Amino acid sequence: MKVAKFGGSSVANAEQLQKVANIIQDDKERKVIVVSAPGKRFSDDIKVTDLLIELGEAYFNKQDYQGKLQIVLDRFHEITKELNITDKIIQEIKDGVEGILASDDSDALKMDALKATGEDSLAKVLSAYLQSLGLKATYLNPGEAGILVSDNPGSAQILNESYDQLYKLRERDEIVVIPGFFGYTKDGKLITFSRGGSDITGSIVAAGVKADLYENFTDVDSVYCVNPTIVENPKEITSLTYKEMRELSYAGFSVFHDEALIPAFKADIPVCIKNTNNPQGMGTIIVSKKEPQPNPVVGIASDTGFISIYVSKYLMNRELGFGRKLLTILEDEDISFEHTPSGIDDLSVIIRESSLTKEKEERVIARIKDELDPDTVSVDRDLALIMVVGEGMDSTVGLADKATHAFTKANVNIEMMNQGSSEVSMMFGIKADKVNESVKALYNTFFE
Amino acid sequence: MKVAKFGGSSVANAEQLQKVANIIQDDKERKVIVVSAPGKRFSDDIKVTDLLIELGEAYFNKQDYQGKLQIVLDRFHEITKELNITDKIIQEIKDGVEGILASDDSDALKMDALKATGEDSLAKVLSAYLQSLGLKATYLNPGEAGILVSDNPGSAQILNESYDQLYKLRERDEIVVIPGFFGYTKDGKLITFSRGGSDITGSIVAAGVKADLYENFTDVDSVYCVNPTIVENPKEITSLTYKEMRELSYAGFSVFHDEALIPAFKADIPVCIKNTNNPQGMGTIIVSKKEPQPNPVVGIASDTGFISIYVSKYLMNRELGFGRKLLTILEDEDISFEHTPSGIDDLSVIIRESSLTKEKEERVIARIKDELDPDTVSVDRDLALIMVVGEGMDSTVGLADKATHAFTKANVNIEMMNQGSSEVSMMFGIKADKVNESVKALYNTFFE
Repeated sequence: MKVAKFGGSSVANAEQLQKVANIIQDDKERKVIVVSAPGKRFSDDIKVTDLLIELGEAYFNKQDYQGKLQIVLDRFHEITKELNITDKIIQEIKDGVEGILASDDSDALKMDALKATGEDSLAKVLSAYLQSLGLKATYLNPGEAGILVSDNPGSAQILNESYDQLYKLRERDEIVVIPGFFGYTKDGKLITFSRGGSDITGSIVAAGVKADLYENFTDVDSVYCVNPTIVENPKEITSLTYKEMRELSYAGFSVFHDEALIPAFKADIPVCIKNTNNPQGMGTIIVSKKEPQPNPVVGIASDTGFISIYVSKYLMNRELGFGRKLLTILEDEDISFEHTPSGIDDLSVIIRESSLTKEKEERVIARIKDELDPDTVSVDRDLALIMVVGEGMDSTVGLADKATHAFTKANVNIEMMNQGSSEVSMMFGIKADKVNESVKALYNTFFE
Repeated sequence: MKVAKFGGSSVANAEQLQKVANIIQDDKERKVIVVSAPGKRFSDDIKVTDLLIELGEAYFNKQDYQGKLQIVLDRFHEITKELNITDKIIQEIKDGVEGILASDDSDALKMDALKATGEDSLAKVLSAYLQSLGLKATYLNPGEAGILVSDNPGSAQILNESYDQLYKLRERDEIVVIPGFFGYTKDGKLITFSRGGSDITGSIVAAGVKADLYENFTDVDSVYCVNPTIVENPKEITSLTYKEMRELSYAGFSVFHDEALIPAFKADIPVCIKNTNNPQGMGTIIVSKKEPQPNPVVGIASDTGFISIYVSKYLMNRELGFGRKLLTILEDEDISFEHTPSGIDDLSVIIRESSLTKEKEERVIARIKDELDPDTVSVDRDLALIMVVGEGMDSTVGLADKATHAFTKANVNIEMMNQGSSEVSMMFGIKADKVNESVKALYNTFFE
């Protein structure tokens, strides 16, 4: 049994939905379908979810929202017309939206219900379309499916009892179409996951039904081993592990909402990323474990916007608790640290620039000076991190050598290196303006 | 004005003391002399301080201690006889030891007073010898000199008011010979520094008198850039910074008791390590800052006996406080960490094997599992750390490349890399049984 999730661009219009129907028909194992709301049909298009958010904001600001609603209705009308199915969804959306706005719910709950309308309506449309093709298919509301969530509007967390309920979907002998992005609290409130939450629904459902495979259909053929805006036509990754995916997505790979993978990861369900526009393509499969590869490096990721706080103190190394105190100061300001490379008497903490406002920086530096009495403290900006990622790296002599040599060839100074004892990745810190030449040089070293 | 400290092998017998006298006479700036107790004259010899400790232990265990005392007396007798000076020190030591043992002091204070007898007596002997050569010289008790310390027998800490007092030594127009290793509390108790404490006295006195140079005379020509038991006849280091010295001494370089350097470091006094047996040699000078060198690497140090605690958890990176909590668990067990290399979802903590007893390990692992709920925890033993050290490393492209290539040539897998943003050092973690070939390869790369 497979769970297939189709993203916004895969359900953006009738033509895309026809491809989706073909994909579903192609494989009888595709029994549970999770869908996003219609996304962009062309680059300047507006996603239905964004239209619904704008609609809500207009309503809350006591502005006219009918124009936004009409655009949403028009999009669905175009779809039903081209698919040659009933257009009763138009009235349902209209009544639904008016009902939400007129309800006694809080603004946060109203917004979540509005946002969910895109997924919910599209699931109904797809189900009707599949039926019109003679398939046994049904729309299933997430509440009926058993997706119970916490009461955090806009960032629902799945409740564990959902999984047992979802497992019962295996008993159905029909194709079930579930809207992504939302669930219900125990007392029946509709709550959405964080943005991109249809991936989360797909992953939860795949874990719940103990799927053999969770297929995530998007608009790229596969995950590339390097950012294609830096290297032209890079190699595709056919298979990677959850850990590798995490390390890559951390530093700039945005194919997958990595939090979305947790349910699938915990239930050990393989995840396949495929292209709705090229379903015969291999795609990229994400698994727990894989066979050792001749080239252990699977990808090179990079991201900018990091800064380093550097602290040095003679004999720091003998001072029990120094590092812990430094991390406590950051934690008190709600700052996550990324890495902590260290010498004997110095310690750097790498953090995301976005997590350090000017005021936080002043407080942090003042506290470090006051509480840790260091010899020097300094902040280094405009850093980029490059991750060379691969699960087999821990048993291959010479990888660090090859990687560092690539930096030398690109004439880039390595500001920082950090490699965990797991060796799933090597991290290099460089000046942000040297990212492109560094990534190119690493790509040439490991993939050409 | 220079402060010269002579170590145990430099004052082991009359012949060595003649060299010391020549060295003092050679440079009129050498006005303050700090001495150790007589050390070994040959490899199986026993240091006077060890004899005094054995004497004390025999006394405390109600065994005969006269034999040990006699060996000490014989050593001093041999020295005074060969130097052709008065032997009244023999009676002074005898009376002194009997007086200490008969006193009402605690055993800890008695032991400290006994241990200090070697330095104290040797300072008197050297002063008498210098006088016999026609020099204006005087023995100066640390109490009179102004060395005030905390009341921690065996591990005295200097009190800050000492420095103003010591500065007055500048007014003296004679050579002052001060015994190393001990000071006095404000209420007059004799307390010793930790073992090797004559280096501490020298550093304190040099800081106090604001010396132009603190000369530390020992029995090696200089600091070598690599452990001479691994590489034959390695290059000598002519100049290194405090930071470099610290990084090197951390990982196996034992020329200098690094805590001893703190007073000199804080007062910014250059320190010169010289050989009593070859005083014309360049020696090695330790300074705060130095000019950039063509080869920024000054030395390669290595040490074994490290272990790594590896913790992985999916999405660890998003968990605010994870690293801090891990360090808190270690701190609760009084365990200092050395480095914390990390990936996105994994974190290793490198610690000294000696700091983790079996019981501590069990408690630490249990708490990590219990409090951090990780996916995996494991302990990796028999690690060695290799430090490639050099102050100019932060502005040289290609150093990491050269270093990692050396490991490849030696066919050694790099288990860990960690480089601070300061780039005073690069750390490599490897299996302990690969240390020698790795260090040799690095030496060939950077120094041949």
